[in-house]
Amino acid sequence: MTAPIPDLPNLAADDSMLSRKFGRETANYFSGSPLNRVSFLRSEHAFLASAFSHPTASFLLMNNLSPTVKDAASLGFVTKADEEWVKCFNSDVVSPLILFLGLDEKKTTGFEYKGFKGAPYFAIDVTPKDGLAEKANGVMEAVKAKGLDFSKSARMLSLTAPEAAIYAQARALLDWNARNPSCAGCGQRTLSVNSGHKRRCPPTDYAGVPEGSPPKERGDCPTRHGVSNLCFPRTDPTIIVAVVSADGTKLLLGRNKRFPPDWYSTLAGFLEPGESIEEAVRREVWEESGVTAGRVVLHSSQPWPYPANLMIGAIAQATPDGETIDLGNDPELEDAKWFSVEEVRDALTSGVSDLGGPPPPTHKEGV
Amino acid sequence: MTAPIPDLPNLAADDSMLSRKFGRETANYFSGSPLNRVSFLRSEHAFLASAFSHPTASFLLMNNLSPTVKDAASLGFVTKADEEWVKCFNSDVVSPLILFLGLDEKKTTGFEYKGFKGAPYFAIDVTPKDGLAEKANGVMEAVKAKGLDFSKSARMLSLTAPEAAIYAQARALLDWNARNPSCAGCGQRTLSVNSGHKRRCPPTDYAGVPEGSPPKERGDCPTRHGVSNLCFPRTDPTIIVAVVSADGTKLLLGRNKRFPPDWYSTLAGFLEPGESIEEAVRREVWEESGVTAGRVVLHSSQPWPYPANLMIGAIAQATPDGETIDLGNDPELEDAKWFSVEEVRDALTSGVSDLGGPPPPTHKEGV
Repeated sequence: MTAPIPDLPNLAADDSMLSRKFGRETANYFSGSPLNRVSFLRSEHAFLASAFSHPTASFLLMNNLSPTVKDAASLGFVTKADEEWVKCFNSDVVSPLILFLGLDEKKTTGFEYKGFKGAPYFAIDVTPKDGLAEKANGVMEAVKAKGLDFSKSARMLSLTAPEAAIYAQARALLDWNARNPSCAGCGQRTLSVNSGHKRRCPPTDYAGVPEGSPPKERGDCPTRHGVSNLCFPRTDPTIIVAVVSADGTKLLLGRNKRFPPDWYSTLAGFLEPGESIEEAVRREVWEESGVTAGRVVLHSSQPWPYPANLMIGAIAQATPDGETIDLGNDPELEDAKWFSVEEVRDALTSGVSDLGGPPPPTHKEGV
Repeated sequence: MTAPIPDLPNLAADDSMLSRKFGRETANYFSGSPLNRVSFLRSEHAFLASAFSHPTASFLLMNNLSPTVKDAASLGFVTKADEEWVKCFNSDVVSPLILFLGLDEKKTTGFEYKGFKGAPYFAIDVTPKDGLAEKANGVMEAVKAKGLDFSKSARMLSLTAPEAAIYAQARALLDWNARNPSCAGCGQRTLSVNSGHKRRCPPTDYAGVPEGSPPKERGDCPTRHGVSNLCFPRTDPTIIVAVVSADGTKLLLGRNKRFPPDWYSTLAGFLEPGESIEEAVRREVWEESGVTAGRVVLHSSQPWPYPANLMIGAIAQATPDGETIDLGNDPELEDAKWFSVEEVRDALTSGVSDLGGPPPPTHKEGV
């Protein structure tokens, strides 16, 4: 699941001091976005209007979190030239959620705003729901007539690295908006602002109010007093760890009941409040396998948009007297085993990495 | 803000292979908890009842997120022997929130449950609110009569490392429960379960129902279909980064308008959906300072319970042609500057690290 580091100018310094000391940076699948998010422009209406209507703007449509695709390796972006769907949406009172994703600065084909250049990227939720079903279905038909389709894959794992990153951003944000229609602080309905990157609990509401009358005052809400993290997208830090034996010759892998036969993976779990990453690694490893981990080294990270995880990859070393496997704590794993580094290397070349996929012809029984 | 690594058995392997290769692990303040969370036992009532009533159990009381303290360096735990407060709470229909924090396995003074041993630690919310005001005030008076008090510090930054970690866990969890009385998925009230580590949106409700009658059915909620991240505590990943110049001789620091004069710090910011940690570092550095970062190395992490951050420390190296400071993007910083490594070293020995604290006598103007 490791993607080549995309050709980004800011990653070019590969012979840098840090690189020589620590090795190359690992960019994992779903990271490596080509877009500059220019997050500080998200609340500027003039910028958004200008970017949205620019001929170089690209739009990723998403139906129930499935993106438009050309094929398994490529997203299908709709451009402004496709007038049908744009017209469809402008006249509706219920607005579909539109995310501003960023500017592709390598594509300098004319768009510029206060010195910021690049092709604008947006994502639009075309899920046929609420008052939007008819229009959304019309848009989807128009898109299909142009040769694009909505992906049938539950997980988009075969895109090119830059498109995977764009999709990950779009999916995570649309999903966060969809999961949080109400305010956790007071229970009232919230409103998506900042082009999909924030949700506010407004103090007034026009719902049920006759035209021309002032809006109703709503009940007080703690999120309106100062800055509240509840207004911002949620990301759940998750550890995934390669535990090596004290002598460095073996690797600890485990299997869940739901895994296909012979399928083992590194251990993983959610970080808890008041825990460092390193502590979360030691806790998860001990809870799931009984193994005691000593030193933990952070390796690299990966956004995982199912729904909102930040996978933090780590390497941990078992303490010499802590290598005994005990599955009696947390019932999460069905089995855990120490594998020699050679076995793991062999499995990586001749095993399967897709959960449920058939093994290749070189596969041997027992990993 | 770096605490010595506490004397934990699982950190003893300091001459390990990973340690020799990467150096010692850094345990930052608020990490290094002495408690085993035994998270898989949180939902076992027999365990909780047994641990709660054991004579070795310790209870941290918190009033509006302020913990009981003995002095600036020590939390003040209440033990089961203090019968007053325990009696106070048992008879009330409104239950205060009680967190199970974990077992201190170094204290094996008799408590054992299915082979798990140690002194149990709990935190209890004694904020005088809802139906609990009178009882809570009584409890707080009783605690004060015993020579403990509730901390007046907004931030508990002078505790011993193990107690800081216990406090961080308790504060983060109580705050998360207090901020999330309602369900973000449907707006209905939620219920704290798993000794404070989960909130559920129940399908039925006895509110307003005559005694002896069945509960009311509540509206459907998406969080009841499968596992929802909304039910679990939220932690916001945040990057904090030391940016070094391309030649490794200078460090980039910035200052916010709210900072006291001459006060500069490393840059920091929240990670966004669909971003790796490394990408979040490059985005924040560019947005706040205009500097382009290349290689990013993860250094260590720190739980920061104000309210729920996971600080992820990184070192980034500026690209040779990306060192020009430009504050024109995000207006967050008032100033950013390159400082020589010597200046930073000097500031760390003779400067102030407390925001707003007076400089020591050795302080020189201009850092």
